[in-house]
Amino acid sequence: MHKQPPGSVSPAKRQIKEVKETKITINCVTFPLPGEGPEQQLLKPDEWSYCDYFWTDRKDPQGTTLVTGFEVLLQKQLKGKQLQKEMAEFIHERIKIEEEYAKNLSKLSLSPLAAQEEGTLGEAWTQLKKSLHDEAEVHLKFSNKLHTEVEKPLLTFRGDNFKKDLKKYDHHIADLRKQLASRYASVEKARKALADRQKDLEVKTQQLEIKLSNKTEEDIKKARRKSTQAGDDLMRCVDLYNQTQSKWFEEMVTTSMELEKLEVERIEWIQQHLRQYTTLRHETDMFNQSMVEPVDQLLQNVDPAKDRELWVKENKTGDVRPVDMDI
Amino acid sequence: MHKQPPGSVSPAKRQIKEVKETKITINCVTFPLPGEGPEQQLLKPDEWSYCDYFWTDRKDPQGTTLVTGFEVLLQKQLKGKQLQKEMAEFIHERIKIEEEYAKNLSKLSLSPLAAQEEGTLGEAWTQLKKSLHDEAEVHLKFSNKLHTEVEKPLLTFRGDNFKKDLKKYDHHIADLRKQLASRYASVEKARKALADRQKDLEVKTQQLEIKLSNKTEEDIKKARRKSTQAGDDLMRCVDLYNQTQSKWFEEMVTTSMELEKLEVERIEWIQQHLRQYTTLRHETDMFNQSMVEPVDQLLQNVDPAKDRELWVKENKTGDVRPVDMDI
Repeated sequence: MHKQPPGSVSPAKRQIKEVKETKITINCVTFPLPGEGPEQQLLKPDEWSYCDYFWTDRKDPQGTTLVTGFEVLLQKQLKGKQLQKEMAEFIHERIKIEEEYAKNLSKLSLSPLAAQEEGTLGEAWTQLKKSLHDEAEVHLKFSNKLHTEVEKPLLTFRGDNFKKDLKKYDHHIADLRKQLASRYASVEKARKALADRQKDLEVKTQQLEIKLSNKTEEDIKKARRKSTQAGDDLMRCVDLYNQTQSKWFEEMVTTSMELEKLEVERIEWIQQHLRQYTTLRHETDMFNQSMVEPVDQLLQNVDPAKDRELWVKENKTGDVRPVDMDI
Repeated sequence: MHKQPPGSVSPAKRQIKEVKETKITINCVTFPLPGEGPEQQLLKPDEWSYCDYFWTDRKDPQGTTLVTGFEVLLQKQLKGKQLQKEMAEFIHERIKIEEEYAKNLSKLSLSPLAAQEEGTLGEAWTQLKKSLHDEAEVHLKFSNKLHTEVEKPLLTFRGDNFKKDLKKYDHHIADLRKQLASRYASVEKARKALADRQKDLEVKTQQLEIKLSNKTEEDIKKARRKSTQAGDDLMRCVDLYNQTQSKWFEEMVTTSMELEKLEVERIEWIQQHLRQYTTLRHETDMFNQSMVEPVDQLLQNVDPAKDRELWVKENKTGDVRPVDMDI
């Protein structure tokens, strides 16, 4: 920043000092050039925070449009919503598989195969068949819990309001960028107007010196006044620009921190619910194992002697033994 | 049994002694009448042994044909063979259900749903999906073992030879009954022949006393000789009958004991293999539970900060912050 208002010094005099460019404005946002100006420390060192890494725009992967850093952050949240929906879909598919399995086991448990086996062996066999129904119940319970404790939450976490909120952020930041672009346009316009006024002053001054025209001192004063005014205009425009950029900067920091927090919450929420999935899996296997206990018990009790007693009592034809015939 | 050969005493004299019937022959087998003769102790007390309870024939459930006690025992063994086949079929159905379940889980594990989740959360999700394939492998292993250790043995236990052996027993015992029937027919025939001879003798003796005919003492001696011979014949037939019945009795005891042993073996063999089923079920649930461990581990390691670092490094657009524009 020069101490003297730009308009009051003639361009010729100004050009003697070499002006080193230390900043660059890209897409209406002003950055220091590499190696110029005071070194910037990260706002949140060691945190890889969103507010530190998304200041520049970039080309989208196709290379066709310009994407702001903020839009990259926003896309991530929208993507997250899509991913949670896909996870819900996956869980839904698991639920269908479990229901099919349960249905098949239940159906088979009603089978009359070997129903005619009797005694202690028959009891054990009957319980074995029944255990399939018990297993089916376990898997059905698993699928029901998967539905209420994992799938449904994944579907309803951050409902429709979430997208609306994201859109609000999007529009808010985009509006500030538009304002910034508008302010920048004004700066450029003022800069050009100043250049024109300075050129005019210079021409008129030269003309006076070589007595080329009948321009009076009066004209030169007028030209100088206009030049000074243009300089003031430019300063005002630059001020407004910097204010608007600061405003955008603050909002960027605040909002990107908000998105960062949302992402942390998203990851932790999903982690929690996937742990619920593994808990249910554990439970299921444990319940399933216990369904085999009664079968084991009855199999241990299988007793051929007992079964013979039961069967013989039921089916004997006669216990009187033959004797020799008398004459 | 009378001490005197039957043929030598005239029927008249015999009839004076009241003959109390103490035995009865049913279907050519001779039994003591209830309450008659020495009390019979069970051959194998407290064992409910086949050899004690299947001496009589009975009507079949439809009431149309006669079924021997031995055939009841034989039917039980044949039934047992059918039941083991039905058990194998049941296990086969379970195997199919497991294979279907495994196939579905494996297919779902390959799903690209939420594959775009990154970082530690993405790793945990990837492992969760993979765990379905691991579960599928466990169930496939279960079904394979069910096939080799339960189904196949049930199908091949006591192959075709078993039925042949049973048929041999069947024919052997049936032949002995046929022989017995044949011997009994001879007894009946001899008994009738004796009655005829005795009647003849009586008639001739009466005729002599009333001097009705010109029959001589010679004729009576001849009639008496024939009667005695008929009595000897009867005794011989009864002897042969009793021998044959004893033979059948012995074979009945031996063979029914064999069938009893076969039944004990059948029950114990099936018990053993069904216990193999429950063992495999236990194993399966335990392996299945362990498939969830790695998922649990990765879920515990989910770290939003780490994921942010990874993502930001990959996706940042620029870390140089905007500065005020100079004039």
